[in-house]
Amino acid sequence: MDFTGIIGLIAGLGLIFYGITGLTDMGAMKSFIEYQSMAITIGGTIASTLIAFPISYFKKIPAQLKIAVQRNRYDPKKYIDMIVDFAQEARKKGLLSLEEKANGLNDSDSFLKNSILLIVDAIDPEKVKEMLDNELDSLDERHSQGWQFFEKASTFAPAFGMIGTLIGLINMLGNLNMDSTSGANALGQGMSVALITTFYGSLLANLILVPVGHKLHMRHNEERLCKEIVVEGVIAIQAGDNPKHIEQRLKAFLCERERGEETESGKKGKKEKKSKK
Amino acid sequence: MDFTGIIGLIAGLGLIFYGITGLTDMGAMKSFIEYQSMAITIGGTIASTLIAFPISYFKKIPAQLKIAVQRNRYDPKKYIDMIVDFAQEARKKGLLSLEEKANGLNDSDSFLKNSILLIVDAIDPEKVKEMLDNELDSLDERHSQGWQFFEKASTFAPAFGMIGTLIGLINMLGNLNMDSTSGANALGQGMSVALITTFYGSLLANLILVPVGHKLHMRHNEERLCKEIVVEGVIAIQAGDNPKHIEQRLKAFLCERERGEETESGKKGKKEKKSKK
Amino acid sequence: MDFTGIIGLIAGLGLIFYGITGLTDMGAMKSFIEYQSMAITIGGTIASTLIAFPISYFKKIPAQLKIAVQRNRYDPKKYIDMIVDFAQEARKKGLLSLEEKANGLNDSDSFLKNSILLIVDAIDPEKVKEMLDNELDSLDERHSQGWQFFEKASTFAPAFGMIGTLIGLINMLGNLNMDSTSGANALGQGMSVALITTFYGSLLANLILVPVGHKLHMRHNEERLCKEIVVEGVIAIQAGDNPKHIEQRLKAFLCERERGEETESGKKGKKEKKSKK
Amino acid sequence: MDFTGIIGLIAGLGLIFYGITGLTDMGAMKSFIEYQSMAITIGGTIASTLIAFPISYFKKIPAQLKIAVQRNRYDPKKYIDMIVDFAQEARKKGLLSLEEKANGLNDSDSFLKNSILLIVDAIDPEKVKEMLDNELDSLDERHSQGWQFFEKASTFAPAFGMIGTLIGLINMLGNLNMDSTSGANALGQGMSVALITTFYGSLLANLILVPVGHKLHMRHNEERLCKEIVVEGVIAIQAGDNPKHIEQRLKAFLCERERGEETESGKKGKKEKKSKK
Amino acid sequence: MDFTGIIGLIAGLGLIFYGITGLTDMGAMKSFIEYQSMAITIGGTIASTLIAFPISYFKKIPAQLKIAVQRNRYDPKKYIDMIVDFAQEARKKGLLSLEEKANGLNDSDSFLKNSILLIVDAIDPEKVKEMLDNELDSLDERHSQGWQFFEKASTFAPAFGMIGTLIGLINMLGNLNMDSTSGANALGQGMSVALITTFYGSLLANLILVPVGHKLHMRHNEERLCKEIVVEGVIAIQAGDNPKHIEQRLKAFLCERERGEETESGKKGKKEKKSKK
Repeated sequence: MDFTGIIGLIAGLGLIFYGITGLTDMGAMKSFIEYQSMAITIGGTIASTLIAFPISYFKKIPAQLKIAVQRNRYDPKKYIDMIVDFAQEARKKGLLSLEEKANGLNDSDSFLKNSILLIVDAIDPEKVKEMLDNELDSLDERHSQGWQFFEKASTFAPAFGMIGTLIGLINMLGNLNMDSTSGANALGQGMSVALITTFYGSLLANLILVPVGHKLHMRHNEERLCKEIVVEGVIAIQAGDNPKHIEQRLKAFLCERERGEETESGKKGKKEKKSKK
Repeated sequence: MDFTGIIGLIAGLGLIFYGITGLTDMGAMKSFIEYQSMAITIGGTIASTLIAFPISYFKKIPAQLKIAVQRNRYDPKKYIDMIVDFAQEARKKGLLSLEEKANGLNDSDSFLKNSILLIVDAIDPEKVKEMLDNELDSLDERHSQGWQFFEKASTFAPAFGMIGTLIGLINMLGNLNMDSTSGANALGQGMSVALITTFYGSLLANLILVPVGHKLHMRHNEERLCKEIVVEGVIAIQAGDNPKHIEQRLKAFLCERERGEETESGKKGKKEKKSKK
Repeated sequence: MDFTGIIGLIAGLGLIFYGITGLTDMGAMKSFIEYQSMAITIGGTIASTLIAFPISYFKKIPAQLKIAVQRNRYDPKKYIDMIVDFAQEARKKGLLSLEEKANGLNDSDSFLKNSILLIVDAIDPEKVKEMLDNELDSLDERHSQGWQFFEKASTFAPAFGMIGTLIGLINMLGNLNMDSTSGANALGQGMSVALITTFYGSLLANLILVPVGHKLHMRHNEERLCKEIVVEGVIAIQAGDNPKHIEQRLKAFLCERERGEETESGKKGKKEKKSKK
Repeated sequence: MDFTGIIGLIAGLGLIFYGITGLTDMGAMKSFIEYQSMAITIGGTIASTLIAFPISYFKKIPAQLKIAVQRNRYDPKKYIDMIVDFAQEARKKGLLSLEEKANGLNDSDSFLKNSILLIVDAIDPEKVKEMLDNELDSLDERHSQGWQFFEKASTFAPAFGMIGTLIGLINMLGNLNMDSTSGANALGQGMSVALITTFYGSLLANLILVPVGHKLHMRHNEERLCKEIVVEGVIAIQAGDNPKHIEQRLKAFLCERERGEETESGKKGKKEKKSKK
Repeated sequence: MDFTGIIGLIAGLGLIFYGITGLTDMGAMKSFIEYQSMAITIGGTIASTLIAFPISYFKKIPAQLKIAVQRNRYDPKKYIDMIVDFAQEARKKGLLSLEEKANGLNDSDSFLKNSILLIVDAIDPEKVKEMLDNELDSLDERHSQGWQFFEKASTFAPAFGMIGTLIGLINMLGNLNMDSTSGANALGQGMSVALITTFYGSLLANLILVPVGHKLHMRHNEERLCKEIVVEGVIAIQAGDNPKHIEQRLKAFLCERERGEETESGKKGKKEKKSKK
């Protein structure tokens, strides 16, 4: 589980709760729960996304929420190690020996597995490159559907929040009765209720839809980085490159600090390489 | 029919109805129907689009609404199957044999049909690629006209909503008479009426124009994906590629889950391929 | 003349008139005509564009308004026919014979004429391609100036509308006198006047500047499409391609319906081609 | 001097003055001059840009304002003539003869001078192309800093205008005293003062920052066009192209009207070329 | 230290202090410090970023703030000098002699050091180019994370400011009591408190988040420029280019004024080069 996201959500709701009640006036919460306002804001957002997106997008929402909440499964360093491992195996025993090793990978690494099997099948290097690049392109295409959905929904939510407020204001102002001072009080209460939909719309967009959409985008970037490393590495293995060179090239994908943590083994690798010469 | 869109529209209107009446105060609906406000909001939006777009765009609206409402006609898996079929036929009986088969395709697959006929005509592979890519480019060009129209209209609608509200406020405030408390009530009613155009503009944009424009974009993406598959496949057939390899390459366009459902046949295909070796 | 644009403008103004007067209260128009407000909104917009653009842009405005109002002069089908005509001529009598034919074109087709003369001059095909592409690039560059001008102006107009409203509000609120109820009425009238500049700014942007800028963009797209067809066609003529193939390739630029209308001749062309083989 | 910009600024300020005073009530100006509001709006905008940009950007502001105010120094036609001149010289007397001629150019044409000297130095054509393209890229890079600065500042100005208004409103509403009608008048005056910062922020952005930033962008486009012409021309001279062909190619960069004015000489050039054949 | 940023922040806060108190009414500050409002605005912004970004982004914030506050460490001229130095060394004593010199570089120049070591290792020029370009790409990728974080946070801050204001308004209007004039005063005070969160959100975004994010972007551009110079230079050294030519090419990356300051040495260099011929 990726606890930061859940902590963020709980913290956000907690802060709103604190903002409303000041931790003392619990009764104030009552005026912030309006089922009719929820229906307009949440329902209207869903209605518009139903028109805007094919039904297939909705089926993917649970899977996407899971991705947004899960811990990142893609660790570039792990993939670099695995590829260097495959490269050494290929050097020693030839490309064909990789098939067995690849079949031993578990399901979460199916992209690496399939990529290795492609070069084992002795397919033309250019076609391997093309096929893997196509896979990356369709990865972009598919994943972008996830965050585009949340981005679009995050524009509908405040819009329906405002539509709900307009409904409230039009109803209230049309029946305005200022003949006594109690009319002014009723006006205040009416506006208070009308503003709740704007509040819901803004909260829905800024605490849930925008951040979740953005997290999906982040997750995609992490996955894409690892798959780029796999593509680069597999093609280098097929070309018969030196495992040390492959490691160096793939490490260019990592940031300095991440590489820094690896310095020890990196330096050792460098020395070995030199002593071999 | 693509029922999600229609369900979305009905649900959206139903929620607005519920928001206005609370299901009890049916009389409230009356103050939300203002013909003059509709004329400004809807009419003004149409007027501005009439200036902004050539008349040819308006003629296409019915066709586009039909596309937005119809069920998706483009199933990438069906196209992959058809292309693999053609590839096997071409392997067995040669490219020329495809002409008859292609003529047997029904009208909804005219792009596939024409693409097959191009390679039957023995045109130079590079030119085939160029012509089909041109077709895809002009597909983008033409379809983008559809959603650009709705996108542009969706910016005019709230603008005219606000213009209408300004008209109402200027009229009302110019004639303000606060000499008695009934003046305050009239002020309220005036503002109520003035806000209705803002309500119409926001609803028109967020429940109809934005979602429909976005759905047209989605439909285009689905069609484009299928046509990309056809282009990739037809060129591979012309190059005389192995039908199994073609199938594998085209499946890279699909998402994992869609491929997953095909695992059974996929694995079988793989085995066959290996046993053939 | 392109009547849709003019109809749109008249319809828009008519709807505003209807919105103000409801067709009964003609006196209401009076409060919507404020010369001081017009000066701030329109004048301010012009002042800011004077700072933002070189003077040469202003000289082009009449020509651009003419383009926005004129009927589209660029019909891709006409250009395809002309190019196929040239291609047939070139096949029969050689490239040099095109010079005379090209000189017979009237001025509105000067791009086609110059393009044909380039290949008659027997210039190297690559250079012809480069020169014509340069022309298309500078077409984009020059035309984009037109709509960029209107787009930029359309952001200034509502800004100066708001600035005018702020001036009105600051003036009025600074001199507020609520000691009697007539003060409230004066407040209303002051706000009414203040809001008129916002109304002007919004109307100027949404009924004139944005739509005209967009129409210029549309007109550019139509012209560019025709010129792309000319470039593609002329290069194919120089390469000595079959007129039928040229026709087919150029038709990929058209949308299906437009091609559909041509089906009859298209099919005939196909038959002819086959019988010739 | 580029008077249109200065005229625009004076006209804009004049219109604001007219909007405030109606040319009769000069006393109204007094309430529009608030030093505290200026400090927040202008000072806040400067403060945020100080954080957002390195100090080096601020040193360039005077030079950039000068560019925005100056008349355009870059006339593409002049550069085309100069390059055709160099091309004819190179044809007659060889590339080396250009060195002296280039050294005779004055400082404002240093880009042309350096470009000519590069080809005189007999550097490899590909490297010349690469070096000049690098220069154009770093021109884009450097100049974009200019307008990016004004664009960013133009987003801070209205933000600090609103922050100032919020300060005013919070102060005023916190001390509200409606016990007598004079309280309402004080409320009005407080709001009047509070709105002045919004007015300043909007005016600063829309009359100065946005237009000046845009003018810098326009000036860059003019300079870039001329330098592209120089690059294209110098490379053609190095390749030993015919001066007439060079002229024709470079004129593709100009718009039709500008070329039209040149028709006479253009036609003559064409005839000469033909008679030479 | 980069004092302009710190001066900007202090100046901004000082101006806000001046705007609130006018330097005389220190008591006014009291109404601008509301811990509950701070909790909603700052806390809500943090909560949403916690959902939107993986935890790894938060760990980098201190390092990024340090970069934003530090003086620019990347001086392109210094790098050009160092590379010209390496180029001369390589010319005299061969590529291998660079290893010792490169090891003498201090840690802040590790990119230059590693690049030099790559060519000392006699790796294939194309691979060197590819590896260094990969490093630049991942530099873009990593650094963009920094400013994207601040950009995203700068959209959440005003949103939570508005959410806080909505909470305040809904609470206040729901309990409105206008039965006596003290009710109006309470209304004013309530609105005053409600607006403070909007004030906080706007200040947080426009004085801190937006400018800091932008400064990070600027710092990245400076670093990237230097690293591009290193890549260009190192590859030229490997190709054995003339140190003078390398210097000329690298100076194309600098702006005119920066080059101007170097004119003296530049001219000298030019003369030397010529006299050597």
